[in-house]
Amino acid sequence: MFESAEIGHRIAKREYDGTVPKLREALLKAQYDLLADRGFPVIIIIGGVDGAGKGETVNILNEWMDPRHIHTHAFAEMSDEERERPRMWRYWRALPPKGRIGILFGGWHTDPIVNRVIGRTDANEMRLAMEEIVHFERMLADEGALILKFWFHLSKKAQRTRLKALEADPKTRWRVTDTDWERFKLYDRFRKVSESALRETSTGYAPWIVVEGSDPNYRYVTVGRTVLDALKKRLAGKRPAVSRAAALPEPALDGRTVLSSLDYTSTLAHKAYGKKLEKYQGQLNLLSRHKKFSQKSLIVVFEGADAAGKGGAIRRVTGALDARHYQVTPVAAPTEEERAQPYLWRFWRHLPRKGRVTIFDRSWYGRVLVERVEKFCSEEDWMRAFHEINDFEAQLAEAGGVVVKFWLTITKEEQLRRFREREKTPFKTFKITAEDWRNRKKWDDYERAVCDMIERTSNDQAPWVLIPANDKYSARIRILQTLCERLEAAL
Amino acid sequence: MFESAEIGHRIAKREYDGTVPKLREALLKAQYDLLADRGFPVIIIIGGVDGAGKGETVNILNEWMDPRHIHTHAFAEMSDEERERPRMWRYWRALPPKGRIGILFGGWHTDPIVNRVIGRTDANEMRLAMEEIVHFERMLADEGALILKFWFHLSKKAQRTRLKALEADPKTRWRVTDTDWERFKLYDRFRKVSESALRETSTGYAPWIVVEGSDPNYRYVTVGRTVLDALKKRLAGKRPAVSRAAALPEPALDGRTVLSSLDYTSTLAHKAYGKKLEKYQGQLNLLSRHKKFSQKSLIVVFEGADAAGKGGAIRRVTGALDARHYQVTPVAAPTEEERAQPYLWRFWRHLPRKGRVTIFDRSWYGRVLVERVEKFCSEEDWMRAFHEINDFEAQLAEAGGVVVKFWLTITKEEQLRRFREREKTPFKTFKITAEDWRNRKKWDDYERAVCDMIERTSNDQAPWVLIPANDKYSARIRILQTLCERLEAAL
Repeated sequence: MFESAEIGHRIAKREYDGTVPKLREALLKAQYDLLADRGFPVIIIIGGVDGAGKGETVNILNEWMDPRHIHTHAFAEMSDEERERPRMWRYWRALPPKGRIGILFGGWHTDPIVNRVIGRTDANEMRLAMEEIVHFERMLADEGALILKFWFHLSKKAQRTRLKALEADPKTRWRVTDTDWERFKLYDRFRKVSESALRETSTGYAPWIVVEGSDPNYRYVTVGRTVLDALKKRLAGKRPAVSRAAALPEPALDGRTVLSSLDYTSTLAHKAYGKKLEKYQGQLNLLSRHKKFSQKSLIVVFEGADAAGKGGAIRRVTGALDARHYQVTPVAAPTEEERAQPYLWRFWRHLPRKGRVTIFDRSWYGRVLVERVEKFCSEEDWMRAFHEINDFEAQLAEAGGVVVKFWLTITKEEQLRRFREREKTPFKTFKITAEDWRNRKKWDDYERAVCDMIERTSNDQAPWVLIPANDKYSARIRILQTLCERLEAAL
Repeated sequence: MFESAEIGHRIAKREYDGTVPKLREALLKAQYDLLADRGFPVIIIIGGVDGAGKGETVNILNEWMDPRHIHTHAFAEMSDEERERPRMWRYWRALPPKGRIGILFGGWHTDPIVNRVIGRTDANEMRLAMEEIVHFERMLADEGALILKFWFHLSKKAQRTRLKALEADPKTRWRVTDTDWERFKLYDRFRKVSESALRETSTGYAPWIVVEGSDPNYRYVTVGRTVLDALKKRLAGKRPAVSRAAALPEPALDGRTVLSSLDYTSTLAHKAYGKKLEKYQGQLNLLSRHKKFSQKSLIVVFEGADAAGKGGAIRRVTGALDARHYQVTPVAAPTEEERAQPYLWRFWRHLPRKGRVTIFDRSWYGRVLVERVEKFCSEEDWMRAFHEINDFEAQLAEAGGVVVKFWLTITKEEQLRRFREREKTPFKTFKITAEDWRNRKKWDDYERAVCDMIERTSNDQAPWVLIPANDKYSARIRILQTLCERLEAAL
């Protein structure tokens, strides 16, 4: 992978001086076209060996283009807010919105590579980290991001020469630290690990471009041209479809579904309900104050048909918790800032710290429910969402998150009864809108989408819990009970 | 202040049971009206002595209303991201958007009170902290926020009794910690300090409501009713004008202004420019890598007439810096999320951490420039902005921020020349729009606004630096020079 970057590539000064003015002008123009287009973000990753001119190249890009519309991020030590969330949270925070260029120094690749080099992780952990990256970048590409990854390489000899030269000059001496020499000792190992990392994460939609770092002019022009060509191509053409849907889910031949097989008959009398409510709310309260919970977090998803009783159920859950420790996030139409980001961004930003609870009233499953049924997104988009969501929830679990997902379901007749009741009760009329009636007409489409969703996103770590909710009392108790069980198992 | 909250207020159970259902229903309705109205946020502050039922009351409010539209925040230990910004940053982050209710546990008052009680601050520091709070709340009220501050009080005797009772019950024992008893020893001092804090921060637009905490029923109904009445009153009426403008600034009688007195004649030849550019960029680079800068931050504001050369100047500044350490924030129309917050919110969110630089390409001064001239805001709004901005910048300076503000100014003739040049040069046409020509027609209005701005917001800590920019070279050098001087003085 690095062979061609050890042969001493260089560009003569005359050629450089002749090339750069036009290149700069073209880059600037492309940047403004991107800004006017606002169709996609550009993510430029800069990685590579020490002393290969990564920093200077980032500065040159900022100099050649308009720095006002470039977001440059270097990922230094994690802040404590970052440490209390899944590993990728800090990268989600740094993503550029559509129309902008984000230069991510080190990207999400450097940490896993360094961890492997210094032996903090083993080979399998490394491979899993690479898999995580591949999924992440595929998602970004599917969301439309233009991803360019540059790896700055130096041969061992060239790196030694360069570090020495930097040290010899008083003006640049500060740039060489002990860590650099420490790392230099690990050159061979670093080369080996990073080569496999690059191989495993180089994809058609997010390729690595290896750049020989010994000659600044060569480096700058190579990066500048690559960015320019990719930008122009993308601005001229259509958004490439990365993940095509090979086949769509079809209903089972016998017409039976997980929903139709549910038992809707169980009920609970008012008095028994009161007793059980007190019991499980008390239990949940104790669990949420458990010492070990300070190292966990709880993420609860409420989904369900209109009028299935999500709001009432949520209030019985929050009633058991201390308001200082939970947030309820009602999910409605995304804001302007959210629309400029990948689909899952608006959920990442609400993830709880350790020791906290976030309850989502509707959630990321909107993609495979309302957006699928109403055709707000393409088939490709909702088909790939199943995998993206599983990946997202696996990351939550990995970081100590207990993910509990409820689907509250009622029969079609019960929904009609509740709609009519809402229309009649003055205080409840705000809860029923024309949209509810419209959705109801698509009952079968929704049911099919729900069944696909359950089949494709229920898993050991975050199983769907189906709650027959014709009887509100028994539904609420089952919800509280489930939360207690899941927390107990996790603590 | 606390006398009336030590007389044993209580509500009988029968009265409570008779009151609550209607109160809840009305609160919920008012909450939905607020949500539909989206005209203002509601900020509920909960403070008071330990053991007076603050937590339970917050939980009750969440139970009585719809917790999905309430943001509850408890301010625990500061995170490192918060520690690296001005003190109020964490509170700005927690502000609820318009249409929502934010319950802020402890508010911004508890820290200064506790710091004074334990002797970490002296009397003057305490008073300054109170002044800061008064300014902050006045700004919030001016921005339309409905602010309700509840202080839960217990007499010394009642507090001892309550803490003992909580301890005696195994179910509630966890709630009493050693810190609580430690603090109890400080009761008298706490009472004295908090009484003066309440007095100094109780205003018509953000009053303290002292609630006796010994009887839960009394407490809940008092808070519930107060919230309901305030919400209903506000929803029914108009937004109250808090800060009326007593008088507007008038131009000086002799017609002379700071701008007309500037010397536009100094120029710099290309060769001399190149030399000086290298010199000052090098100096700025060294300063930005100075050890002591890791405890400071640099906030640079660029304002100026259209075509005055802000963009070019910014690029000469960023050219001296490492792209990993600065962000340029171009200020355009606010986003939807920004419009739902007080005016300065969108600048607070971009404040740099320590050791970093943020460059604002246009800034919070838009309020007293374009928004004033184009009448996008009322006279009251831009008149109060002068004070709010001074207050904001004082907070930045207090937290180690070096604030440098440049006004780039060109003569009317020079602007015309540049507009025409832009129209002629193919690559520059994107830089000139119909809006620029429209703005130019209001040259005198803008000039007057600029003069008022300079007069009212130039101060020792963050003086305006007026840059005659008919000659781009000399303007850029003066800017770099000023940055070096200001940084040098600060380090």
